[in-house]
Amino acid sequence: MKLVKVIGSVTSTIKDETLKGSKLLLVQCMEVDLKGKQDYYVAVDTVGMGEDEIGLIVTGSTAKKTEQTRKKNVDATIVAKVDKIDLG
Amino acid sequence: MKLVKVIGSVTSTIKDETLKGSKLLLVQCMEVDLKGKQDYYVAVDTVGMGEDEIGLIVTGSTAKKTEQTRKKNVDATIVAKVDKIDLG
Amino acid sequence: MKLVKVIGSVTSTIKDETLKGSKLLLVQCMEVDLKGKQDYYVAVDTVGMGEDEIGLIVTGSTAKKTEQTRKKNVDATIVAKVDKIDLG
Amino acid sequence: MKLVKVIGSVTSTIKDETLKGSKLLLVQCMEVDLKGKQDYYVAVDTVGMGEDEIGLIVTGSTAKKTEQTRKKNVDATIVAKVDKIDLG
Amino acid sequence: MKLVKVIGSVTSTIKDETLKGSKLLLVQCMEVDLKGKQDYYVAVDTVGMGEDEIGLIVTGSTAKKTEQTRKKNVDATIVAKVDKIDLG
Repeated sequence: MKLVKVIGSVTSTIKDETLKGSKLLLVQCMEVDLKGKQDYYVAVDTVGMGEDEIGLIVTGSTAKKTEQTRKKNVDATIVAKVDKIDLG
Repeated sequence: MKLVKVIGSVTSTIKDETLKGSKLLLVQCMEVDLKGKQDYYVAVDTVGMGEDEIGLIVTGSTAKKTEQTRKKNVDATIVAKVDKIDLG
Repeated sequence: MKLVKVIGSVTSTIKDETLKGSKLLLVQCMEVDLKGKQDYYVAVDTVGMGEDEIGLIVTGSTAKKTEQTRKKNVDATIVAKVDKIDLG
Repeated sequence: MKLVKVIGSVTSTIKDETLKGSKLLLVQCMEVDLKGKQDYYVAVDTVGMGEDEIGLIVTGSTAKKTEQTRKKNVDATIVAKVDKIDLG
Repeated sequence: MKLVKVIGSVTSTIKDETLKGSKLLLVQCMEVDLKGKQDYYVAVDTVGMGEDEIGLIVTGSTAKKTEQTRKKNVDATIVAKVDKIDLG
C-alpha cells in the first residue's frame, strides 16, 4: 500500500458504467514525513475520507477486490484511513 | 486511475487481431495543475474523447475489464472524461 | 522481490474489513549497500519482522497469495527476513 | 500500450521452455517526438517488426493474452506496428 | 522482460513456506550497453545463472507462471540466460 493525502476530487459525467455512484478522489503520494511527492492518483474511496486526510491506497488488480469495488473498473482504491504513523 | 490529456492518435495496419476497430489515442499524463508530464500511453478510448480533453485511464489488467475492451489485448484504457478537478 | 528495511508502522481504525488484525509496517526500499531509497511501502508482515530489520517484499497480485494474506486486500507483503546479502 | 522502437535482439540458449521459438527483440521506449528514453524491454514480437521500426508493446499480464504468447512466460509483447503518429 | 546481471545472493532463514528451496539471487537492471542501473530485484533463478552473468527477468504475475515457480509466492523470476545482445 502507499501513503496518500486527499487533495481534491474529480467530476465526470461521461464515464464507464461501473464507475457511476463512486466518488473519485484526487490523492497525492506522501513521503514518510508527510511531504508530498509529485505522484498522484484518482482513487475510489471505500472508507469515508475527508479533505487533507491521510490514507492508504492499493493499486493494480487488488483495487478491484474490495466489497465496494469488485464490479468496478478501477485500478486505485483507498482501503484505510491512517490515524498515526510511528517512525521507530 | 491517472489524469491524462489526449494529445494525438496512432495509426497501425499490422496489429493484434483484437485491436482491430479500436481507436488508439496518444495520451499524456498530467500533474494536478494540468501541466504535462514526460509520461505517455497509447490507450483505447471507451468514452468518446476529443483532442485536448482531460480523462482518466486505467492501466494493467483492469484495462481489459470494460465492456468495450474485454476481448482486447490492451493494458491502457480511457474510462472517464473529466469535467472538473476540485482542489480542496 | 525488493529489499526493504522496516522503519515504522501505521495505525488505522477505519479500514477495509479484510485488513483487520494485520500489522501494517512502513518499509523503505534499499540499495544493495543498504542505503535507503526515497521509495516506501506500507506492507503486511507475514514473518515477524522487527524494527530496522531487512526483509523482502512482494508487490502486486502476488502480495495476496501467501497463506496469511489470501483473503486480504493488500498489494505489498513481507515474505522473508534477510539474514545476509552476499555481493559476489 | 507504450511506444517503442526496435533497436536490436537478444540470443539465449538456456531459457524457460515456453520461450523457445520466440524472437526476443530489444526495444527502447520513445517520447512522442520519437526521441529515445532510457527505458528498455526485451519483448516477444507478434507482428513481424523490423530493425528501427516503431511499435506498441503491452506489459504485465496482458503480454500473455495474445494468440502467439498465451502459453509463454513473458511480460512484454509487441502487439502493433505503428504506421503514423498524429499529434493534434 | 528486463535485462539484468547477477550481482549476488540473499540468505533468508525465516521466510514464506513456498520460498524454501529456492535460490534468491540479487540482480541489477542493465542498460543495453550493459552499464548497471540503480534498480535491483531479488529474483528466483530457473535457469542456473552464475555470478556476473546476464539474464532476463519477468516480474509481476508472470513470475509465478514458470514450472519451477508456479507454487511460489514470487514476483521476479529469471527465465533466460543471455548469450548475446545484438544492437542493429
